[in-house]
Amino acid sequence: MTPKEFREVCRSGDFDSNSAGYAPGYAQANLVILPKEHAYDFLLFCQRNPKPCPLLEVSDVGNIEMKRTAPGSDIRTDLPKYRIYEDGVLTAEVTDIKEYWKDDFVTFLLGCSFSFEDALENAGLAVRHLQEKRNVPMYRTNIPCDSAGVFSGNLVVSMRPYKPRDAIKAAMITGRYPNVHGSPVHIGSPCDIGINNINAPDYGDAVTIHPDEVPVFWACGVTPQAVLLASKPAFAITHAPGHMFVTDLVNESLACL
Amino acid sequence: MTPKEFREVCRSGDFDSNSAGYAPGYAQANLVILPKEHAYDFLLFCQRNPKPCPLLEVSDVGNIEMKRTAPGSDIRTDLPKYRIYEDGVLTAEVTDIKEYWKDDFVTFLLGCSFSFEDALENAGLAVRHLQEKRNVPMYRTNIPCDSAGVFSGNLVVSMRPYKPRDAIKAAMITGRYPNVHGSPVHIGSPCDIGINNINAPDYGDAVTIHPDEVPVFWACGVTPQAVLLASKPAFAITHAPGHMFVTDLVNESLACL
Repeated sequence: MTPKEFREVCRSGDFDSNSAGYAPGYAQANLVILPKEHAYDFLLFCQRNPKPCPLLEVSDVGNIEMKRTAPGSDIRTDLPKYRIYEDGVLTAEVTDIKEYWKDDFVTFLLGCSFSFEDALENAGLAVRHLQEKRNVPMYRTNIPCDSAGVFSGNLVVSMRPYKPRDAIKAAMITGRYPNVHGSPVHIGSPCDIGINNINAPDYGDAVTIHPDEVPVFWACGVTPQAVLLASKPAFAITHAPGHMFVTDLVNESLACL
Repeated sequence: MTPKEFREVCRSGDFDSNSAGYAPGYAQANLVILPKEHAYDFLLFCQRNPKPCPLLEVSDVGNIEMKRTAPGSDIRTDLPKYRIYEDGVLTAEVTDIKEYWKDDFVTFLLGCSFSFEDALENAGLAVRHLQEKRNVPMYRTNIPCDSAGVFSGNLVVSMRPYKPRDAIKAAMITGRYPNVHGSPVHIGSPCDIGINNINAPDYGDAVTIHPDEVPVFWACGVTPQAVLLASKPAFAITHAPGHMFVTDLVNESLACL
């Protein structure tokens, strides 16, 4: 399926599963929709924290088409599944948001680690959670994000284990992609960044770490969602975990070129 | 002089000249100050046009200290010279802006090509306008920026001539610095991007182009100022041309790392 075909299948209501593996080679994006009144603070939060919050597109107010990254798209219908939050509480999980849409909504699309995992695998660096058919392990850290207006909180990281020499390669490869989290934020001791038990991730699933491997940590797109919801905005919409927006951007176009 | 010492000399009123060459190795920044009402559109314009508008720091509303890039600074006094614009018209050129300051002002610092010129020279690629002791030549192009709210307009570029093999090296070197305009936007024929006479720049000075050289064009920090003023905001403050804000960031920290 092309990205456009994938979005059309979602739009028709015939697809509500995980988007991983569909439209291979194309960038999938995290979704955040907020009323205009919170958009400035959120945009500034993303500007100040580009590693966890790499912006791929910010819509005009009320616009349903992501015209820069997915011409012809309709953000109200083109994801497999959405989450509705009121006062920071999850109140519904739905396959389209037409009944919730308001003309003062601003849509934010943020880069997703699927894109750099593609680059890692293309370079021969296997990604453990993909090998083990699990979700990537994610952890809350003690690293504070740079606050903006009502938004503040600590960085959430994802982890992929590698042998030290491959960890170095992985840092160089992902460093080419600042628009999808970029280079790692930490390598080695989990407790240095406030992670007490590497086998008990806060989100996702634990994966095997072999004795000759070190954990490598990247800024994670769960960060903006966690920070957003902690501030308990009156209304917000996000993608359901793993149910991303598929753009027309090829992953390689997200490299620093 | 260190960046801090340079800012203090400006603050004391004893320096109102061009900042080029001071605090070598440290990033100098373009300045834009706007009332909060225009800050969202301008922030979004910068997000959508990162090559001409690479944001180094955006202040909190009303904050005079650039705490991320220059702790202890006072943005009202620490530049050698400022320009005041009312309804898009230049109404004053001053050495401090204390009497103009309002609590709803937002300060934007944008990366400046001085930083990547440092990298070019360190790599042995001489920069022609520096050799000839002129200002860099800058041109209006026919390349539209991506609009945001009230802000729209065409890209302004700066030009440095190189032999083709050095032009390739220059592209690779500057491509490492997305926070200071990044890789070139065009190499070769000026008329391809709407420049009719390479010897008559719209801003700055013409420089020598030898017969075996090609012009290389980079997105220029004059773009956001030109776009901003074309929208005739009721009030805006910028640095005076060449009279930049000197940050504590070393140029190399602006590389994609």
